[in-house]
Amino acid sequence: MSEERTEISSLGEFGLIGHLTKNIEHQNASTILGVGDDAAVIDHFGKQTVVTTDLLIEGVHFDLMYTPLKHLGYKSVVVNLSDLYAMNATPTQIVMSLAISNRFSVEALEEFYEGVYFACEEYGVDLVGGDTTSSQKGFVISVTALGEVAPDQFVKRSTAKVNDLICVTGFLGGAYLGLLLLEREKKIFLETKGVQPDLEDRDYIVGRLLKPKARKDIIDFFEKEKIVPTAMMDISDGLSSEVLHICKQSNVGAVIYEDKLPIHPDTKEFAYKLEIDPTACALSGGEDYELLFTISQADYDKIKDALGIHVVGYVAEEKEGATILTKGGNKHQLTAQGWNAFGK
Amino acid sequence: MSEERTEISSLGEFGLIGHLTKNIEHQNASTILGVGDDAAVIDHFGKQTVVTTDLLIEGVHFDLMYTPLKHLGYKSVVVNLSDLYAMNATPTQIVMSLAISNRFSVEALEEFYEGVYFACEEYGVDLVGGDTTSSQKGFVISVTALGEVAPDQFVKRSTAKVNDLICVTGFLGGAYLGLLLLEREKKIFLETKGVQPDLEDRDYIVGRLLKPKARKDIIDFFEKEKIVPTAMMDISDGLSSEVLHICKQSNVGAVIYEDKLPIHPDTKEFAYKLEIDPTACALSGGEDYELLFTISQADYDKIKDALGIHVVGYVAEEKEGATILTKGGNKHQLTAQGWNAFGK
Repeated sequence: MSEERTEISSLGEFGLIGHLTKNIEHQNASTILGVGDDAAVIDHFGKQTVVTTDLLIEGVHFDLMYTPLKHLGYKSVVVNLSDLYAMNATPTQIVMSLAISNRFSVEALEEFYEGVYFACEEYGVDLVGGDTTSSQKGFVISVTALGEVAPDQFVKRSTAKVNDLICVTGFLGGAYLGLLLLEREKKIFLETKGVQPDLEDRDYIVGRLLKPKARKDIIDFFEKEKIVPTAMMDISDGLSSEVLHICKQSNVGAVIYEDKLPIHPDTKEFAYKLEIDPTACALSGGEDYELLFTISQADYDKIKDALGIHVVGYVAEEKEGATILTKGGNKHQLTAQGWNAFGK
Repeated sequence: MSEERTEISSLGEFGLIGHLTKNIEHQNASTILGVGDDAAVIDHFGKQTVVTTDLLIEGVHFDLMYTPLKHLGYKSVVVNLSDLYAMNATPTQIVMSLAISNRFSVEALEEFYEGVYFACEEYGVDLVGGDTTSSQKGFVISVTALGEVAPDQFVKRSTAKVNDLICVTGFLGGAYLGLLLLEREKKIFLETKGVQPDLEDRDYIVGRLLKPKARKDIIDFFEKEKIVPTAMMDISDGLSSEVLHICKQSNVGAVIYEDKLPIHPDTKEFAYKLEIDPTACALSGGEDYELLFTISQADYDKIKDALGIHVVGYVAEEKEGATILTKGGNKHQLTAQGWNAFGK
């Protein structure tokens, strides 16, 4: 990061936007008109448009004490793309609004945008508009992402069927443990001046929190294998909470097997060190941005050897509720203890 | 407004969203899937999609001391629709994200959403998604609006031609004077306990600030009369600033006639009372949400008798710059003194 500090007021609102967007090159034929007018124009040429939005607030969703701005820019994009992939759609454009206080310099924003553009490049998405304004306090990021899907090929949460298989991608619980580690080190740093954070070379869990990936590869795999999940959503609030969403919206129940939950060895190891249950982290820890989906049993052969797809249970009758079968042979109700922005 | 106070935490995030969105009925065939999934699905059926976004921050863009929440909800939608009309597009959907502190009750949010739904109803727009989260301080509103336009019928800022006529809709400068009045009364109220605000029955200018309209009627008129402006944008930062945008992006100059500027009698009267120049208010006062557009001279007959359309000047060669001819016969350069979020 540069040591220079250019005040945002020296550029003005339009100068700043011009500066931060001057190198944009569109990657999608659907982007007809981008940044610089009252609105952007998009043509999905016979496909349907899928739209999602997320608001990220400093002090609620991220802590700049341990979140590099470049990673934050990257993650702000990725968490929205994850919602589009969860619809079985292909992301094509984003609009991004920022509110920033005068403690930010132009160089700090350049770093943030570096992450934004990196994500755009990686996922083939065009930044086509936004709004940049001042805030009295704190950094506010609002991203709306647009994508496309062939007519009526989108996948909802409400269409899981009894006896479908319940699958998740990747590993669960890692981002939550990354958060615990970073929060622990922040506390030590603030209490004991001069002590440098000790991240114990735990790159995996820290990376899961700060640099999540959206599962484009899974959507590509579905297309290649001609799989259409019966229901799908992304896992941002913990597996339990998301399984309950699918159950409620599909009017079904679910059985999850504890011993099938995919938990990375680094996640397990750090959980044991903190003396917490890795299963609880997988069920209730948020921000993994993996996909949860259900498929017909007839599709089992297509996914059984797929890298990074794990069958963790099955869809049951609604009256059976949503339960987890533990390694010890017990049956518990799943409860949503995921992150709740309005928890007391 | 109800006297009850229900804490947001008593509903939880998903309960709150469910409560506030339970009565949504879609008005547009293009809304395939609305609130309640990872993303919304839209099908503009052969038309192009137009997208715009705005971020409104308490203390920067609005003051809850004198802004009723219902009006704020309404205005949050309208300012985005104004950007879509400025593209010659028809608004169809919005997504809305809010960050709220715990000083807000469920009843306060209901009042805000009453204004949101009122605007949706009035302009035929569907609320199809969003994100609701907590803020540490202050109220944050992010709206992204989507609309549709027949292929390549959108109107940019960059396509004004020399000798085109420059037109504005409605009246200018009123919202700025409404702001001055409300700020004055707020100051008196804070300094002298017990003194009630005296808005002097100035409903017109106060209404211009708190309840702006988007000019759907003008876009409908263009369609009926088969007029396609050569360039267009909405007037949110004052006429000078917007004329300069069109000049810069179209590589043209402009001549504006002071005596042609449409200023409402109530605006003039209050400006004189404050001993400020109504012309300065029209040129530099923001938030009028009228349209600024250019048309070919050949279209003059179609608009010359249209209610609420005023020819205020013409497009000149780029080398002539952007100027205003005063009533006294002087010529001045137009300068952008509109609202600047990053002004010192």
